[in-house]
This record gives sequence, C-alpha cells and structure tokens, in this order.
Amino acid sequence: MNPAFKTIALIGKYQSPDVAAAVLQIGDFLRARGLHVLIEQGTASSTRLGSGFAVATYEEIGAGADLAVVLGGDGTMLNAARRLAAHGVPLVGVNKGRLGFLTDIAREVMDVSLGAILDGEGVEAHRFMLDVVVKRGPRSVFHTVALNDVVVNKGDIGRMIEFDVRIDDEFVYTQRSDGMIVSTPTGSTAYALSANGPILHPDMVGIALVPLCPHTLTARPITLPDSCTIDITLLAPHDARVHFDGQERFDARAGDSIRVTRSPHYLRLIHPPGYSYFAMLREKLHWSASPRTP
Amino acid sequence: MNPAFKTIALIGKYQSPDVAAAVLQIGDFLRARGLHVLIEQGTASSTRLGSGFAVATYEEIGAGADLAVVLGGDGTMLNAARRLAAHGVPLVGVNKGRLGFLTDIAREVMDVSLGAILDGEGVEAHRFMLDVVVKRGPRSVFHTVALNDVVVNKGDIGRMIEFDVRIDDEFVYTQRSDGMIVSTPTGSTAYALSANGPILHPDMVGIALVPLCPHTLTARPITLPDSCTIDITLLAPHDARVHFDGQERFDARAGDSIRVTRSPHYLRLIHPPGYSYFAMLREKLHWSASPRTP
Amino acid sequence: MNPAFKTIALIGKYQSPDVAAAVLQIGDFLRARGLHVLIEQGTASSTRLGSGFAVATYEEIGAGADLAVVLGGDGTMLNAARRLAAHGVPLVGVNKGRLGFLTDIAREVMDVSLGAILDGEGVEAHRFMLDVVVKRGPRSVFHTVALNDVVVNKGDIGRMIEFDVRIDDEFVYTQRSDGMIVSTPTGSTAYALSANGPILHPDMVGIALVPLCPHTLTARPITLPDSCTIDITLLAPHDARVHFDGQERFDARAGDSIRVTRSPHYLRLIHPPGYSYFAMLREKLHWSASPRTP
Amino acid sequence: MNPAFKTIALIGKYQSPDVAAAVLQIGDFLRARGLHVLIEQGTASSTRLGSGFAVATYEEIGAGADLAVVLGGDGTMLNAARRLAAHGVPLVGVNKGRLGFLTDIAREVMDVSLGAILDGEGVEAHRFMLDVVVKRGPRSVFHTVALNDVVVNKGDIGRMIEFDVRIDDEFVYTQRSDGMIVSTPTGSTAYALSANGPILHPDMVGIALVPLCPHTLTARPITLPDSCTIDITLLAPHDARVHFDGQERFDARAGDSIRVTRSPHYLRLIHPPGYSYFAMLREKLHWSASPRTP
Repeated sequence: MNPAFKTIALIGKYQSPDVAAAVLQIGDFLRARGLHVLIEQGTASSTRLGSGFAVATYEEIGAGADLAVVLGGDGTMLNAARRLAAHGVPLVGVNKGRLGFLTDIAREVMDVSLGAILDGEGVEAHRFMLDVVVKRGPRSVFHTVALNDVVVNKGDIGRMIEFDVRIDDEFVYTQRSDGMIVSTPTGSTAYALSANGPILHPDMVGIALVPLCPHTLTARPITLPDSCTIDITLLAPHDARVHFDGQERFDARAGDSIRVTRSPHYLRLIHPPGYSYFAMLREKLHWSASPRTP
Repeated sequence: MNPAFKTIALIGKYQSPDVAAAVLQIGDFLRARGLHVLIEQGTASSTRLGSGFAVATYEEIGAGADLAVVLGGDGTMLNAARRLAAHGVPLVGVNKGRLGFLTDIAREVMDVSLGAILDGEGVEAHRFMLDVVVKRGPRSVFHTVALNDVVVNKGDIGRMIEFDVRIDDEFVYTQRSDGMIVSTPTGSTAYALSANGPILHPDMVGIALVPLCPHTLTARPITLPDSCTIDITLLAPHDARVHFDGQERFDARAGDSIRVTRSPHYLRLIHPPGYSYFAMLREKLHWSASPRTP
Repeated sequence: MNPAFKTIALIGKYQSPDVAAAVLQIGDFLRARGLHVLIEQGTASSTRLGSGFAVATYEEIGAGADLAVVLGGDGTMLNAARRLAAHGVPLVGVNKGRLGFLTDIAREVMDVSLGAILDGEGVEAHRFMLDVVVKRGPRSVFHTVALNDVVVNKGDIGRMIEFDVRIDDEFVYTQRSDGMIVSTPTGSTAYALSANGPILHPDMVGIALVPLCPHTLTARPITLPDSCTIDITLLAPHDARVHFDGQERFDARAGDSIRVTRSPHYLRLIHPPGYSYFAMLREKLHWSASPRTP
Repeated sequence: MNPAFKTIALIGKYQSPDVAAAVLQIGDFLRARGLHVLIEQGTASSTRLGSGFAVATYEEIGAGADLAVVLGGDGTMLNAARRLAAHGVPLVGVNKGRLGFLTDIAREVMDVSLGAILDGEGVEAHRFMLDVVVKRGPRSVFHTVALNDVVVNKGDIGRMIEFDVRIDDEFVYTQRSDGMIVSTPTGSTAYALSANGPILHPDMVGIALVPLCPHTLTARPITLPDSCTIDITLLAPHDARVHFDGQERFDARAGDSIRVTRSPHYLRLIHPPGYSYFAMLREKLHWSASPRTP
C-alpha cells in the first residue's frame, strides 16, 4: 500500500451528533501528524464541528482525499462507499460499538491502528460493487451502485410477487416469492445470511442470488460468476420495492426489469495490520474461538 | 357425519365470472337431488347467476345452510372459513385447477364426490383457528380470526423491524427480523413452509412461530401448545403490517402488541371419501409416489 | 409435588471418577436432612465412594427410591431416564459445567435448589418417551425406549440409504437420504435441531420426523400427533444403524422395519423453583436476554 | 473444439451387463464413421462385448483416446473422470435413464448428439477437481482426486465428531458435527445440495465448505476461492470416514489432517450443441419451465 497519505477525510455516521468527539479526536490526531484534514459536509453540520477543519463535499473528498476515515457502523461505510464509488479513495472504518464486517477498528485502539495504516502497514482489500439499472421498456429509469446487495421485495402486500429471472439473456425460471436478494461477497454476511444465503469469502468474485421465502421449495440460492448479467423482470400485476444496501430505494412497476451487473467501481477497504476475515466471522457468528490442534 | 344436508350454499371465487358454469352445474346437480340451494350474494353478483337460485348473504348462509360448497382455490376457502367462522357450517372445497390443501375435490369428479358427501360418506376434519387482537396500550384496536396464519411484516422498508415476543406473559426474546409468522397446522403448508417452517399434521394442536429472515441465526421456528397466549410487541421506532391469511391487513404502530390465541371457532372441513392428507402432501411437494414394500 | 421424599438415589456420569466429590457432597447434604441415600452401583464403583452409603442397582432404585439426583450432563440424564423408564421415579439433574436442557441445576447452587425441591417446591414436568421395536418379518428382533430420539442412519457408507415411511399403516413416501430422526419435544433441541428440525415446546405432544440430508429437497420435517405409529422400512439392499438417544445402537438389515410409537412410560423431571424453559432456550441459543418493553 | 476425434473410447457403467446393447450400438455407429473404437477393459468384461472391438485399460485410453464416451449415470462419469484425470481426455456422457448433471445426452438421441460432437459442434467445459492428501504427522498416508466432493463423516457412531478447520494455515474454527463436505461447483448440485449447501455455477472457481448437522447453528456453508488450502484435523478421540465422490474411501484416525486444494487436473466435459446448464437445473429441481416475458 502506498503510504503517501497527505489529505485525510473524516466521514461520520449520518446525522449523529454523538460522533463529534471521535471526529475531533481523530482530526487532532491527524493534524498532529502534519496531515491535511477534511470533514465531510454533512458530518460537519450534524456534529457542529466544522470550525477548526476544512469542510468538503463528497465530490471534493473524492477529488482530493488520499484516504477517508469512516466513523460509524457498516451502514455508514456502505453509504460512504456508494457515494465515493467512482473516485477510488481508500476507506478505513472505525466503529464505536461492536465491530462491524466493514468497520473493523475499535475506537479504543484507533490511534494505534490508524497510525499503522498511515505508516503504510494497512492491508488493502478490494470489494467489488454491483451496478443496477432499472429498465422500463427501452428506457433506463433508474441507475445506482450497491456494495452489499440489491433486494427486490414485495413490500407491504400480503401476497408473493412473481418475476422472471434471466442470466446473460437466458431464461432461468419464473419465481413466486417475497422477493430476491442479489448479493456480493461483502453482502453475503449481511441481509443475505438471514435469508439462508451462503457466505462468500471476500476474495471470491461471485454474485449470489438468494430467494426470499420462495413458493417453490427447490428454489435454492445460486452463486454466479461476476461476469453475469442478471435480469429480474416483474410479471404483471406485480410491482416491487427495490432496495440498495438497505439505504436507497426505487419503486419498480410491473414489467420493469432490474438489471444487475458487476460495477467497474469497487471499494478500496483498508484493514489494520493483523486483520483476519475469519477472526471477524468467528466473533460475529459466535464460532468457537481457539484451536485445539497446534 | 350427519347426512341431514337439506340446504346447501354455493360460494365462488371472489369476483370471478368464470366460476359461473361450475356454480350452475352444481346448483342444478343439487336441485336434482331435491336440495335447497343458496348462492352467496357476491358470487351471484359476479357470475350474474342469481336468477334461478336463492341469493344469500354470509350471515344468512351461516344461519341457514347445512353445508357450503366452495368453488375456487385455497384462498377462496380461507375467506369463506373466516366469514363463517362463528357459525359452524361445514365446508367442502371444489377446485377447478390443481388441487389445493383445502379445496380437495377436482371439478371433473365433483358430482361423484359431492354425491358421496351428501350421502353421508364424507370425512369431517376440524381445523382450529387463531384469534388475534391488536392492543394499543389498554385498548383493543383490532380483532379478527385467521385459519392459516398471522404475519407481522416489516412492509416496504429496507431494514428489519424489532419486537419483543412473550408467551403466556413470559418474555421469550427480542427479535430483529423481517417479521414473524404465527401459523396453525393448516397454515404450516402455506406461507410458513416457504419461510422454512415445519409441517404440522392437521391433527396436531400446536401453533408455530416462524421468524422471517431473523438477524440472529439461531432464531429457529418453535412450535407451542395451542393453549399459549403469544404477544408480539413492536419496539419503537418500528411499525409493521399485520396480515391475516394473506387477505386482511392491519397497520400496527410502534408499541402495539399483536396478541394471538387459539380461537373458540374452528373450520369444519368435509373431505371426500378416500381423502388422504399424506397423498395430498406427496402430490403438492412432489414426493415419491409409490411404496416399494408391501 | 409430593414432598414425601425419604429415599434418594444418586446417579453419576458413567465411569467418571471426577463426580465423586459432588456425589459425596450431595450424599452428606441429604443425610444431614435425615434422608436415606442410595448410590447407583456403577457410580459407586467408578467413584469408589460406596463405603459410607448404601449401594443399589437401577432396579433397586426403581423399586425403592422416591427421587433420583443425576450428576452429569444431558447424556447422563438420558441414560438414567431410559434405565428407570418403567419405574416412575422422579429425576432431578445437577450439572457441573454449562447447564443442559435436562440437567438444569448448577453445581454451585445445588444445596439451595435441592433443598427447595426436597421441601416440595420443585416443578414436576412430564416428558414422554418413544417405544421402538425393530421388526424382521413377523418377529420383533429388538425393543427399547428413547427419550430424545431414534435415529436411522446410513452409517459409514458413502451413499444414501432408501426406506419407505408409513404412518398408521399408510404409505407416506419413499425417501433417499442419510437417514431419519424421529424426535420427541425433548429431543427437538438436541440432534434434531442440528438437522434443521423444528423446536417443539416440551408441553407439546407431537413427534417430529426430521430427514437427514434428503435427496429430495422438498422432504421437509413434519410433526405428527403422538398417537401415530411410524414405520421406517429399509429397502434392499440398504441396511442401517439405528441409534437411541445416541447411546444404544441396533444394526438393522434390509427389509427390517423400525416401528416407533409413544411409550406408556415417561420421564418425571423435577425442575428447581423458578425454572423457565424459555430462559434455558435463550441461554443455549444465545438469544437476546432482556425485554425492551415492560 | 478440435474435431480431430480419431480414436474413441467407450466406458460403461461399472459391472452392468445391461449397457452392452448401447455400447454395441455406439461402437457400430463410430466404426461406420471410420473411427477407431476402444472398449474399456472392465466394460468389455462385464458386457462380454470385447470381441469385435479393441479392449483398452484406463491407462491406454488416457494415452491413446481422443474422446471417451461414458454410458451410465453421473456416478459412472465421476469414476471415469477420476481415473482419467491426469490425461486430459475429453469425456461425453450418455444416460439411459433420467439425464444427469454430467451425463446429459439421452440415449434416444445419442446418434444425433454424438454425431454433432464428432463434427466439432460440441461445447467443451472445464470442471476443476480437488486434490486430497491425508497427513498423519509429517507423512502423507493417502492421496486422491475428486470431481464432486470430499466428505469427512462420523460414520456409524451415534455421536458427533470434532475437528479443527484451517484455511491457508489460519485457524477458522473447531466444529462439532456429523462431518464436513468440501465441494466443487460440480459437486454443489450433488450431495452438498442435500446438506443445504449453495448451488455454485460451474463457471465459478470456488470451493464450498458445507457442514453436516453442525452442533453450532451458526456454522453456515462458506464458499472460498479455489486458491485456498483447506485442512480438516480430527481431534482426539474422534476418527472419521473420508469419502471421495461417494466412491473411494479412506478411514482417517484422530490427529489426521485432510488437506484439500485445487487439483492441477480438470475434467474436459463435452456437452452436445444447445446444452444449457440452467435448463438442466430447471429439469432436475422442478423449477418452472417457461418464461412469461418475451
């Protein structure tokens, strides 16, 4: 990893005044190392902390920051990753509570961990993202990216929805269910896991299709190569809610196709030295903690 | 079974003109046997068939019919069962398409099967129902019954809801999930099955709690005695949609408790002679069809 | 509960010298209360503790004890329950490690809990057992009882076995799988849970059939009334291992039928005052511990 | 695909005299096209067909055949693939019964399909294999390859086994379960699917770890990059049976490590023109067959 970190952005949990102290602490820490600090505009505004530091929009962070420190949970990281997707700024996550899958530095040790990362000892991982277009006939009516998942959901009706699934323009099946999760490896330990989806190691390059309560009991999760184009077409009279990382939403109509491909963008995630994906899984899933064989 | 069937009601699929021919055919068949025929008001109206037969409301059917023949799928039967729950009228289901779990007479053989039932050769089964009250503080703000299930659901939001579950006033757990299905044995082969719930034989008297995509992976389905009182209390800021048999709906607010108990009412379902629950399961779940041992 | 406990038996974990101290401690505690103490023969022998106390076989315990205290884990309780099934002696379990589902008194508090039970403040629960007969043609070649489960298993071969399942002499399906678990509610939180079986509340009177890795994906667990007779008939050329509570074993041949019914015997399990099944489930399954609503 | 098929081997189902007619038919068909035909030695012997054709061992087929036609089910293909793994001979499968995942030409159309393949119209797919070594201390005591899966299994005991899992020499967890399936994408629709494993598209290069009835309910299937080294180390006193494609077996002792990596060998599988993986899945899993949208 290139240690040439000169301008560092700080991004706090959305509308959370209580991250102010941590933002300030890190800001001072970075400044003491002679680094230039930018505070994301919304963060500055909700923490009322802007005064001492330069304030920047996501676009300015994307254009000018060498690293962004995200303070919050995985949701905050997801949001920052999506906002900065096109810019290639590496992100590092600091979590004040239980560690997340993406925000893996505990606040208590953040000086040490951030210091090590600034010294070039971090471990950079690439997490690919999904590109989503909603097509209505020949037109594209919505476009976004997602780091965890795209979820097509029946919403608040009492009955299942029906849709056709095509992969690389080949018909796969018509499904009746509560909906479908299209998940990256990063998302495989998030919502997809609750829906009985498979865990995909972050170094995998596959995309998982995980049905939500499918009427056909044999409709099992399937993992596809990341080169696939996945189309989910809503069959009349069914419309659906489409959620992106649980944060953004589009209301799709009968006949709409949700087209998912691998995005050219990806998250550059910086782990602290010593980071272990399996240690994180053990911790989060309450797996046994210590080997019995040497 | 008591063969004293003198007045027979006919109930067709809701707003389905295409059941007119079947209603007419059964009506004529019953009249030819000297029976008095009532056509449910909505059915008469949507099929424009009223002229030759007496038209009756659900209340009049409840008060005066010795048997009701339901033409449609399981959804039609669920609706009729809920409408007639308090009256104890036995129901028999005729299905024009694939057989349902509750509508188990195929239209092609309905003369033979109905004739046998009228001759007292049917098999009566009792399917218990759920009584549901939504409590808002000390007040009851909603009350209904359900034959299949009560489903508390997050609706069209992108995140999970949280609620406390109590059984017989004892705290069981706080759950974060997409919602919870409370299912009877009758409902155990419906929506609950898609959510990985257990199949409960209809002669069981248990109630299944089936979590929908629970965040905690150990939140497994649990089956309770039918004597239990189940309370699901929405934790602020979460509200939820509550569906009853996928047909009726109530929008519950944060703080509301959905209280489910066994109803004093039950469905009296008449199966044709030779009916087999396991044969039905085999057919519906594509299980192997023929024994290899004598 | 009848507090007329005069003769108390002590049963320790099989061949475990390390329960000696606990046996001695409880023996002294009971003697100090003026009670007559019997030590189970095998326990006496493996702990070399017999001297001060009367030693008794399981049959003598069955005939003469008013209560048996079991020291060990759930496996020890299962064994004692099966050995004493026909005698109706109530059992209470003391566990030195993590609490079990059946051994629910922690060793640290055993004086208080046992004292309360001896004062008549315990809560008696009945756990029904399964009666199992293996039929080979017209002959019964094996007979036993089980408190948790009967497991028909392919054993150490690399391929699945095939068998017919009949309930009350009606054919249900031919299954190809690694085997089948027939579980009581007591067993539903043991092996059956690992095989995706449903949790059955101990007050339920159902029997769960839980397939082990079924080839047909729609072969889901099914819960049956306890009045059912379940026959599992091995199809040639498949033989199988049959395990009872994971403790006893019978090697069944092709053509053998394993017939499971509810046993007339049941376990009389004494819980300490304040026992809660749901608290136990929460603890064992790592469910959230505290309600958020009053 | 290179159409230079001059020498074609025929491999029949193991010890199955009833494939004789099909072998003969294909042999004549190939000879009529001027091709050189080899019959696998065991096939020749069990079908008593050797006379008219050259008989060859697997080694001779590996050295001299341009294509091998396998007659039987997926098991026959697995066996042939493992026997010929090191030689790179492309295989094509003809199935006399229901199509398999690997034997995808129906016997009724085999002349047409084989003819097209011989004309160079087949579609070649590569299916990677697993290399398995069992280590006992510093020594390798067993070595083989597998196309579907490596299954570590408790065998015929009534209790679970325990083992440590390491990936790339990093400890992942200690698991107590009935065992573990290590599966390729090819194996993901075989035994692993019955154990709730994820379907992996054959173009994926991942390896799935699928626990068998894990005691810890959060021990979910995980898919790893094919570059991983997976070690499963049996903890004393547990030994285990290890099965390879359900065909070969090794009895591992406490302390043994089963080491699985991607093999340098792979199966060259020739599909007939028009082959579709998703059509095969639909057929095998009873998914809906026809799209509703154009």
